[in-house]
Amino acid sequence: MADSLNCDLKSLSPLQLFERVTEQGEKVRALKAGKAPKDEIDAAVRMLLSLKLSYKTTTGQDYQAGLPPRDLVLINNGTTKEEDEDFVDPWTVQTSNAKGVDYDKLIVRFGSSKIDTDLINRIERAIGQKPHRFLRRGIFFSHRDMDQILDAYENKKSFYLYTGRGPSSQALHVGHLIPFIFTKWLQEVFDVPLVIQLTDDEKYLWKDLTTERAHEYARENAKDIIACGFDVNKTFIFSDLDYLGTSTGFYKNIVKVQKHVTFNQVKGIFGFTDSDCIGKISFPAIQAAPSFSSSFPQIFNGKENIQCLIPCAIDQDPYFRMTRDVAPRIGQPKPALLHSVFFPALQGAQTKMSASDPNSSIFLTDTPKQIKTKINKHAFSGGRDTIEEHRKYGGNCDVDVSFMYLTFFLEDDDRLEQLKQAYTSGELLTGELKKVLIETLQPLIAAHQERRKQVTDEMVKQFMTPRKLAFEF
Amino acid sequence: MADSLNCDLKSLSPLQLFERVTEQGEKVRALKAGKAPKDEIDAAVRMLLSLKLSYKTTTGQDYQAGLPPRDLVLINNGTTKEEDEDFVDPWTVQTSNAKGVDYDKLIVRFGSSKIDTDLINRIERAIGQKPHRFLRRGIFFSHRDMDQILDAYENKKSFYLYTGRGPSSQALHVGHLIPFIFTKWLQEVFDVPLVIQLTDDEKYLWKDLTTERAHEYARENAKDIIACGFDVNKTFIFSDLDYLGTSTGFYKNIVKVQKHVTFNQVKGIFGFTDSDCIGKISFPAIQAAPSFSSSFPQIFNGKENIQCLIPCAIDQDPYFRMTRDVAPRIGQPKPALLHSVFFPALQGAQTKMSASDPNSSIFLTDTPKQIKTKINKHAFSGGRDTIEEHRKYGGNCDVDVSFMYLTFFLEDDDRLEQLKQAYTSGELLTGELKKVLIETLQPLIAAHQERRKQVTDEMVKQFMTPRKLAFEF
Repeated sequence: MADSLNCDLKSLSPLQLFERVTEQGEKVRALKAGKAPKDEIDAAVRMLLSLKLSYKTTTGQDYQAGLPPRDLVLINNGTTKEEDEDFVDPWTVQTSNAKGVDYDKLIVRFGSSKIDTDLINRIERAIGQKPHRFLRRGIFFSHRDMDQILDAYENKKSFYLYTGRGPSSQALHVGHLIPFIFTKWLQEVFDVPLVIQLTDDEKYLWKDLTTERAHEYARENAKDIIACGFDVNKTFIFSDLDYLGTSTGFYKNIVKVQKHVTFNQVKGIFGFTDSDCIGKISFPAIQAAPSFSSSFPQIFNGKENIQCLIPCAIDQDPYFRMTRDVAPRIGQPKPALLHSVFFPALQGAQTKMSASDPNSSIFLTDTPKQIKTKINKHAFSGGRDTIEEHRKYGGNCDVDVSFMYLTFFLEDDDRLEQLKQAYTSGELLTGELKKVLIETLQPLIAAHQERRKQVTDEMVKQFMTPRKLAFEF
Repeated sequence: MADSLNCDLKSLSPLQLFERVTEQGEKVRALKAGKAPKDEIDAAVRMLLSLKLSYKTTTGQDYQAGLPPRDLVLINNGTTKEEDEDFVDPWTVQTSNAKGVDYDKLIVRFGSSKIDTDLINRIERAIGQKPHRFLRRGIFFSHRDMDQILDAYENKKSFYLYTGRGPSSQALHVGHLIPFIFTKWLQEVFDVPLVIQLTDDEKYLWKDLTTERAHEYARENAKDIIACGFDVNKTFIFSDLDYLGTSTGFYKNIVKVQKHVTFNQVKGIFGFTDSDCIGKISFPAIQAAPSFSSSFPQIFNGKENIQCLIPCAIDQDPYFRMTRDVAPRIGQPKPALLHSVFFPALQGAQTKMSASDPNSSIFLTDTPKQIKTKINKHAFSGGRDTIEEHRKYGGNCDVDVSFMYLTFFLEDDDRLEQLKQAYTSGELLTGELKKVLIETLQPLIAAHQERRKQVTDEMVKQFMTPRKLAFEF
């Protein structure tokens, strides 16, 4: 019954939930004032508590009488129609649900495929290893044509990996590492070439940056990416502003994509308007072109038809839906995709983390002390308000940001399951869970900082020089 | 009176003129049938002849009873409002006037400045030489900021020349040489670097061509351009498809222009619609970027502020109006411009020549016999229908294509003036004028063919290799 109640409540907007809590509070007061039978009052109080929990789960805020949910009303413009619709495009991720975006709905809306147990098992058989925790835990949850990649791999046909980053600032946060951690694992288990695009041109077009600054960010970000441990003999990192001027293949593919996509199409896919600059309007072709191996003649010896696999957060899918639509019309194979969920902000899963808000995330430059303070102070808790309540009712792992972060970074499945049970049962307190996260992230980030210190300008130059990699084509 | 009649007739559409001729013909027949006084009949006949002449001048066709003017009715959609409005953009040049586009009106509409006697005299003083016949004869008739170029030149500050061509086919016609002949002269008298853009990417986007074919056309066209006699030490020719992938400066300027131009702007300037591909929409930035010296770091040693002068046909001005609007916003000097009139088709000055219609033009590959046949058969004549009439009334140089071509290619001013007087007076017959043109063009084209034969692949490679030129910056 609690489940079916939750089910009903899920369809309510934050404002509607707020009104239900208010009504139920008035009902409880009326019953008490009218000296109603004890079991009737108890039932109404249980319902009130349940409604309050749902309110907190949905809004990320405690219910306060007379204070309707502010931000969320704003996000949804106060309309009720789109209340439960998440909004996801490459620039904006919005959801009113504290658990984050409804990814099952996104799969249906985007027309991609769920990464199910069958596919994970097939990957395990193909590589002869345990799949990465991001696969085991549904962090990479959606795909396009991953079965074709496995077909190719099983038939000893090669493919390559392509991922990227928009260098909008010097400092990366832990969420930025997700695609790179996973891509590194994919590269190791499949032993394939990898290209990493740094879209400094995109950041120049979208932000108040000079080309020089955007390019500087690209080089700084490259250092953090290299510090993830990529093999220089198998990996090519490039800035668009540089590589467009040094590749005999890249611009040709860009202009081919640009010939086959109309303004109407990018308007529909990306929401561009007539007031947008022509740079933004034509940019999607620049993110599309690395999906085609002929963009990298130095790596693929001019071969045109090497299949591409793109691991990325699902907000980047619109670019590649467009790319897959164009590919057959320019005689190229469609790239395959693996989509990840979004990494939640410390304040909760309603949005992606923001590199511009230092308190929304743990940065790769944070000291152990900063990590500890940020988590203790800002990590949204699914625990109860008092120790007594927590011991009695237990915490909610679905909305607890510390627990979410541990699903990303704690490798040990058994340990993670223990933590979940202990927290849900109330045995483990919020502070204790946060301590586990702090102790997980501190050494991880310290190790990253140590590796990053080893990354010299010479190494950046090596990674970013167009060249043959350790593969024959 | 004849003038004021012509003035009135000029405001009439071809169809209205046709109707006036028909009416007047009926009036003459009625007068004759009614045995009217001889002087009244004579006056009506003179009016009829005058109307017929105006009809031919305006439509480029002889009046034929019962046959209204076809093409021109179509061009103007039969509306009277826009009859005397020429239409000029980079893809279409339309006029209903046999004399060609009204260039004075175009100067007003485009907001450029007329190249007047004062400016021509100033150029003559600056270079210490007689100005090129294209300046003396108003073929380059309009400019933007040419005075600033002369200021710079007189103050020993350097500038550079930029012109270009869209390589839509293998064969060039004589009209295509105009900007190159003039640019070569400018380069020689001012002794400055020259960059020549071959927009093979544009032709790929607009035409049904592969990138390979467009690039092949670019290389073939480069041979004809080189055959004009450019100095390899002072000239850089580039294909966009190549140079975008080999320059560290070109793409950076392209993306800067693209950030500062909206879709609304290119819609207004070029008439793009929502159904146009994003390649067309962003292309204007690619034609704009060579106006900035930092697009050629190898030539200008990375210097950003070298002034640019662009000789081109006036239909290319929309690109550079846009460029001049953007320039100060990206910290670059506005390019100066010199605009030429259009080279008329053999059939008349209503349109530019078309590389796709072999009979509309004299090609650089035509044999002496083909040149003779084409001129004799297709060159629209301003002469009279019979030798007797011609001797009596004289020919009309304003609409005679052979005479127009001679203004482009006959160097001797006195000879040209003699021909004009002899033809206008009726002393010189159409066939004789055509013979002068044939004898002018045959050796010119034979010499071009001879020089083109000397252009080796190695020379093309030299001209198209990004490198330092014989100038210090």
